Amino acid sequence: MNFSSRLLENAVNEFSRLPGVGQKTALRLVLHLLNQPVADVDRFSEALKKMKHEIRFCDTCRNISDTAICDICSNPKRDKNLVCVVEDTRDVMAIENTNQYNGVYHVLGGLISPMDGIGPSELNIESLVQRVKSGQLQEVILALSATMEGDTTIFYIYKKLKEFPVKVTTIARGIAFGGEIEYVDEITLGRSIATRVPYENSFLK
Amino acid sequence: MNFSSRLLENAVNEFSRLPGVGQKTALRLVLHLLNQPVADVDRFSEALKKMKHEIRFCDTCRNISDTAICDICSNPKRDKNLVCVVEDTRDVMAIENTNQYNGVYHVLGGLISPMDGIGPSELNIESLVQRVKSGQLQEVILALSATMEGDTTIFYIYKKLKEFPVKVTTIARGIAFGGEIEYVDEITLGRSIATRVPYENSFLK
Repeated sequence: MNFSSRLLENAVNEFSRLPGVGQKTALRLVLHLLNQPVADVDRFSEALKKMKHEIRFCDTCRNISDTAICDICSNPKRDKNLVCVVEDTRDVMAIENTNQYNGVYHVLGGLISPMDGIGPSELNIESLVQRVKSGQLQEVILALSATMEGDTTIFYIYKKLKEFPVKVTTIARGIAFGGEIEYVDEITLGRSIATRVPYENSFLK
Repeated sequence: MNFSSRLLENAVNEFSRLPGVGQKTALRLVLHLLNQPVADVDRFSEALKKMKHEIRFCDTCRNISDTAICDICSNPKRDKNLVCVVEDTRDVMAIENTNQYNGVYHVLGGLISPMDGIGPSELNIESLVQRVKSGQLQEVILALSATMEGDTTIFYIYKKLKEFPVKVTTIARGIAFGGEIEYVDEITLGRSIATRVPYENSFLK
């Protein structure tokens, strides 16, 4: 692109480094900001900087937090015996939105993915083992994506925790709410039959 | 959304103010930045702030510029008798990319749009009239979008410039390169017949 200004070009280049943002979109966003009041752009710029410099990760669960111990871990009403292992903070949000879970979390910060060069040591797995070792936990729920990376990570963590007296569970896989049998893929359908649930325990009542 | 951190929430809110960016996309972008080196995020934040504080508009053509007179207006090789009127800096870029134009520009900063509360006084029309009044210009090319707002703006500027000894032209409208007649809309096709061009002047040779 032929930019008439280096300042404009720099801002566009920074935006276009973001995932899914091309040069044209970046230019549109930058020109939008150029039309906004100075105070708004300063606030945007400041919010980013502050976020990056001041955000920390909860000492216990490694979730994004403003404080040393996050709100969930420090909430006396949450069940500290039950820990749900998730990939990242988006999954914590998703599970919190269900209003079905009252335990605490452990955020791995990713999944094992040899293709992307992410091994177990890059993830917060050792700190999970330490939490289990401390003996307080009764159950570890592995709520990881149903992908190859998720399954690999589940298997790795399961092996690591096998020696401890803790129950290790994974979230149920099966047909989704509203799913019609004829359109469900065969792996999901097969597994949903293999892991069928007694009607009394199915929450369909 | 249930954010685990106010800093995260602020950054996501700022991003989601951008046009076409919803909360989920904003969160994805912010988490991406959170994974980048501090120096990169600082550079991003700084580029935005600098852009907003230091960018200026060319005193002559009102295009975005780093200097009082932009590179195009100060280029001695450009034809100063020919001025192309455009909506914004993106249009200057688009025309520069054609490598077909050697005159200078005048950037309106928008189009007349009563629906959006944009009248002629919000645009750089008076400064265009002043440029024409100064008597140097031979031709004003109106290169505005073929929309109702574009047409309204063309009509308004044409009326304003009628009294001056300057040629006022608009860019050609017709079927696009690669356009197949059977798929062209009737207004475009009708107009392309009405404004047909002698073969010798058609640049098809």
